[in-house]
Amino acid sequence: MITKSNRLKEVQEYYFSRKLREVRQLKAKGKPIINIGIGSPDLDPPLSVSRAMVATIEKNHIHGYQSYQGLPELRDAITNFYLRHFDVELNPENEILPLMGSKEGIMHISMAFLNAGDEVLIPNPGYPTYTSVTNLLEATPVFYDLNDENDWFPDLEYLSKFDLSKVKLMWINYPHMPTGKNGTKALFEDLIAFAKKHDILLINDNPYSFILNDNPLSILNIKGAKEVALELNSLSKTFNMAGWRVGMLLGSAEHIKTVLQVKSNMDSGMFYGIQQGAIAALQTDDSWFNNLNTIYTKRRNIAWKIAERLDCTYDTDASGLFVWAKLPLSKDAEQVADELLYDYAVFLAPGTIFGSNGKGYIRISLCVTEDVLNEVLHRILKDKNE
Amino acid sequence: MITKSNRLKEVQEYYFSRKLREVRQLKAKGKPIINIGIGSPDLDPPLSVSRAMVATIEKNHIHGYQSYQGLPELRDAITNFYLRHFDVELNPENEILPLMGSKEGIMHISMAFLNAGDEVLIPNPGYPTYTSVTNLLEATPVFYDLNDENDWFPDLEYLSKFDLSKVKLMWINYPHMPTGKNGTKALFEDLIAFAKKHDILLINDNPYSFILNDNPLSILNIKGAKEVALELNSLSKTFNMAGWRVGMLLGSAEHIKTVLQVKSNMDSGMFYGIQQGAIAALQTDDSWFNNLNTIYTKRRNIAWKIAERLDCTYDTDASGLFVWAKLPLSKDAEQVADELLYDYAVFLAPGTIFGSNGKGYIRISLCVTEDVLNEVLHRILKDKNE
Repeated sequence: MITKSNRLKEVQEYYFSRKLREVRQLKAKGKPIINIGIGSPDLDPPLSVSRAMVATIEKNHIHGYQSYQGLPELRDAITNFYLRHFDVELNPENEILPLMGSKEGIMHISMAFLNAGDEVLIPNPGYPTYTSVTNLLEATPVFYDLNDENDWFPDLEYLSKFDLSKVKLMWINYPHMPTGKNGTKALFEDLIAFAKKHDILLINDNPYSFILNDNPLSILNIKGAKEVALELNSLSKTFNMAGWRVGMLLGSAEHIKTVLQVKSNMDSGMFYGIQQGAIAALQTDDSWFNNLNTIYTKRRNIAWKIAERLDCTYDTDASGLFVWAKLPLSKDAEQVADELLYDYAVFLAPGTIFGSNGKGYIRISLCVTEDVLNEVLHRILKDKNE
Repeated sequence: MITKSNRLKEVQEYYFSRKLREVRQLKAKGKPIINIGIGSPDLDPPLSVSRAMVATIEKNHIHGYQSYQGLPELRDAITNFYLRHFDVELNPENEILPLMGSKEGIMHISMAFLNAGDEVLIPNPGYPTYTSVTNLLEATPVFYDLNDENDWFPDLEYLSKFDLSKVKLMWINYPHMPTGKNGTKALFEDLIAFAKKHDILLINDNPYSFILNDNPLSILNIKGAKEVALELNSLSKTFNMAGWRVGMLLGSAEHIKTVLQVKSNMDSGMFYGIQQGAIAALQTDDSWFNNLNTIYTKRRNIAWKIAERLDCTYDTDASGLFVWAKLPLSKDAEQVADELLYDYAVFLAPGTIFGSNGKGYIRISLCVTEDVLNEVLHRILKDKNE
């Protein structure tokens, strides 16, 4: 009997994986389930992206191994994108590492800097992968609270009261998933000062900047940020390319080199055609973002009505692909999610998936059409009126 | 100062990475360097592969996240391929895990089964990634000797004399890189028995089966293999798709499930268009292999002449993308490689890259055209005749 590694003992099956199996079973029984639980963009990338793939795919000599650091043209396109949208200067030679999706970057960064037993500051609520990767490396997640009382910002003064000597990394994610809370320059400045004081590597996971947000911010825009901060970004949400697996890591040459030491021993460079698609995406003009957000704005209006109908409150300033809706105090998130699933055949995410501070919240995805959201609204209204 | 993790202390810069930097510098100075060092296929995939991508790439709704386990059609295509070429039956539901290249599988498998301090049997000579991944997880590489006296087969009787209680994994790789040695059913049977006796998970890394080899073998073809063995395979060499990043892991449902537990926390499913290309490749008819090997046979004839000219001997039965050439006893591999680089502007791999048992060997790649190989021969002959 060959036993699994200890690292897997802490890692549980993803809630979505378990729940989606149940959803499939219900569908198989004929239930007309609507899924507003998942944040996978349903819209298509700019046509130029697919065209770039078509233009290269039948060429000779594009099918071999690619450099771990990607094509120079891709790194140039990322440099220009960061300058244009975030006013951040990056050296395309050594401050950019293209990734096969930013998710793999979470593992690469963690492997590059964490030893077993090191502590990692992780937002509660937050993206579950920060926790599972930390557990996979037998480091220790230390959750910091985000809640509506502190406006979903970490309380750095409070955190400073604790012994932080074992903390090596801190994950932040603004615009924040699942709450949609936006970062500010002041927040980022405070975080950089905090990281410098406590010798912590700060990583801002930044895939939602361009969704329902007029003011995209990069933590690298803060003076001195590169000394202690890295940023992950992705084309998944910005250009509806989640399946293409294109992410990027940005930061100081020294940090990037350390992460590359891990990556080069684990995988290989991205397919040439995908890199060409990524370049085309990064060069898309600004009308793309306007059109995209016009669609999401219309969807969000309906999602807000759904939230209201469920007696929820919500923040109209939130960014990103979701509406984070606060239930009345008496309601339990998982119970509400189950009721919606069994009574209305609507699947959505209870806030507890993202940590204990998600208690009392549900998350509605904007990755479905207005028609689908209206159908959800219709199902709930119909029942209420009966 | 944020220090890198301890795991990186054991991982050195890849020889190729360092040497190729030198090659680039020489090229920049005008040296007409020929590279016969690298095993990245220069030939193109079947046209049906690119066509499959073109046929899907402008479709709607193919750009979102894909399942970790890949499309059912891809798993079916892999099932059929393994049945047709290896006479191995696999359950497409749970005995196949598509990967973004088989290289990432080495890390996934290692994370799934290894704890720090566990021992891993690794071939010397062998693919350097087995060692670097083992070191990255702070497990301990234990090298087993392959040499021409034991016909590049592990001496299992000798290994059994040692305390193997801490050994958790054993990497094998037949057809073997860099030597080109083929496995046999008898060898695989012995290995399975050895693995069962010592409670070791055996992984056969099998990407070279179809290159200059009339008798492709899978370790899973051996009765009872799935209890203790996994197999990695890849489209990189078989279909000239190294850049596409398509690999696969095959084995028992239980082992696959354990590896999936790691993979689902580290990356995501493969791009839809790439999966469609992979399906087309796997369905290619057998004339593909004949044509491919006709080309490699012609190249190998020239590579053999190069080896002879360098006073080397070689095994004419070898498979795979390389000629593994034994130098005269007096010659040092790295010195010969350096002489070829500096005197003839020819870059090839000294055997020592692959471990101490590569001492006294050089590796010539067949991933260049006949013209290029002839030019190498010409350069050496010219000098010899002067």
